[in-house]
Amino acid sequence: MTTGDKVVPILSPVMARNNEYAEGNRMIFRSAGVFAVNIISSPGAGKTSLLEAMAARLGGDMVVIEGDVQTRRDAERIERAGCTAWQIETEGACHLDAEVVQDAIGKLDLTSGRWKILAIENVGNLICPSSYDLGEHMKIALLSLPEGDDKILKYPAIFSRISVLVVSKMDLQLHLEFDIERAEMECRSLKPDVRIFRLSARTGEGVTELCDFLLEQRDKTLRAV
Amino acid sequence: MTTGDKVVPILSPVMARNNEYAEGNRMIFRSAGVFAVNIISSPGAGKTSLLEAMAARLGGDMVVIEGDVQTRRDAERIERAGCTAWQIETEGACHLDAEVVQDAIGKLDLTSGRWKILAIENVGNLICPSSYDLGEHMKIALLSLPEGDDKILKYPAIFSRISVLVVSKMDLQLHLEFDIERAEMECRSLKPDVRIFRLSARTGEGVTELCDFLLEQRDKTLRAV
Repeated sequence: MTTGDKVVPILSPVMARNNEYAEGNRMIFRSAGVFAVNIISSPGAGKTSLLEAMAARLGGDMVVIEGDVQTRRDAERIERAGCTAWQIETEGACHLDAEVVQDAIGKLDLTSGRWKILAIENVGNLICPSSYDLGEHMKIALLSLPEGDDKILKYPAIFSRISVLVVSKMDLQLHLEFDIERAEMECRSLKPDVRIFRLSARTGEGVTELCDFLLEQRDKTLRAV
Repeated sequence: MTTGDKVVPILSPVMARNNEYAEGNRMIFRSAGVFAVNIISSPGAGKTSLLEAMAARLGGDMVVIEGDVQTRRDAERIERAGCTAWQIETEGACHLDAEVVQDAIGKLDLTSGRWKILAIENVGNLICPSSYDLGEHMKIALLSLPEGDDKILKYPAIFSRISVLVVSKMDLQLHLEFDIERAEMECRSLKPDVRIFRLSARTGEGVTELCDFLLEQRDKTLRAV
């Protein structure tokens, strides 16, 4: 992504190509009975810690695609937590696109029907990933308490497109000044029907609620097909 | 920025244009006797809080350009802390480029000779801003303790290009597991001569040291001209 006037002639074919792959991913998710979530946040907001905590509850029901600029560190953490994981290293790219996700799906043999939830952890970046449809059922954003309660309106592109907001690192609440009501209100001003979970991967607060919600959404989606 | 094979034909003219503006900025900084720093980090790592703390020490010696996707929130904070500030709203763009900075410089009447330090707070993003030369004398990156000690090698493009690493939010050290030695060692593996400051904008730890270092660098640079 770059400034508006520069990208119009450039991004259109890129986006058209992305959207074709996203459509393909959607078909694969449907036939595999998998509910796919695209998890987006700043670096260090706790995406991988959340997935580790979810792995403890969802176990073999969840499979994870990890996106990072470099290193296999996150996939290794997820595997240690007991879930199958595939690492995409974007080698400089600031977001995942539907094509690299489709490639990862092929490696995972997603259509085996083993999994209910596919969690795609996007590259740590609150801006660029918001424009790329990966074919997911929903986008989930994390906002961690240490980042500050002013971030929602500063990054409206992502917070207006999410179905779920996870307010993460709730265990640090006593040590920080973060007005949770303000952040939640600002998020609802962008996305009135957003579902919000206050969560701590460390203490476990909110993790079961989020997992149950995702399994529910998965069942609803399957029934609707 | 997007994946390598897609950008080569697109980014080259964009980068060439950026570099021309960066060269222009460099000339302006030189003639104004201003030492310019480009401050880069994840959203919420504490860039604005650092600048507020620096404002308390540098007062009228510092001027600030604020970059954000949206809102004037950061410039307002800097003005309340007693420094002149200009807010760039990038309206979706994930980084500052040299052209928007040159435009802001014009608004600030930088050549008046009033200021010693120009701090440019980039958009909260650890990836895209790293490729854009703004004409600055040095890049400073912040890594805050809550983000985790594994981030340096996950985002090598920025951490290999910085002159200064600020390990921020040191006041939270007791509440977090963050191996500072590990992060510093990994940073030095990418940039052996990086200067590292452990800092807390809240307690003031490290702020004077960083300000003194920047003023020293400014004097050295002026003498070298």
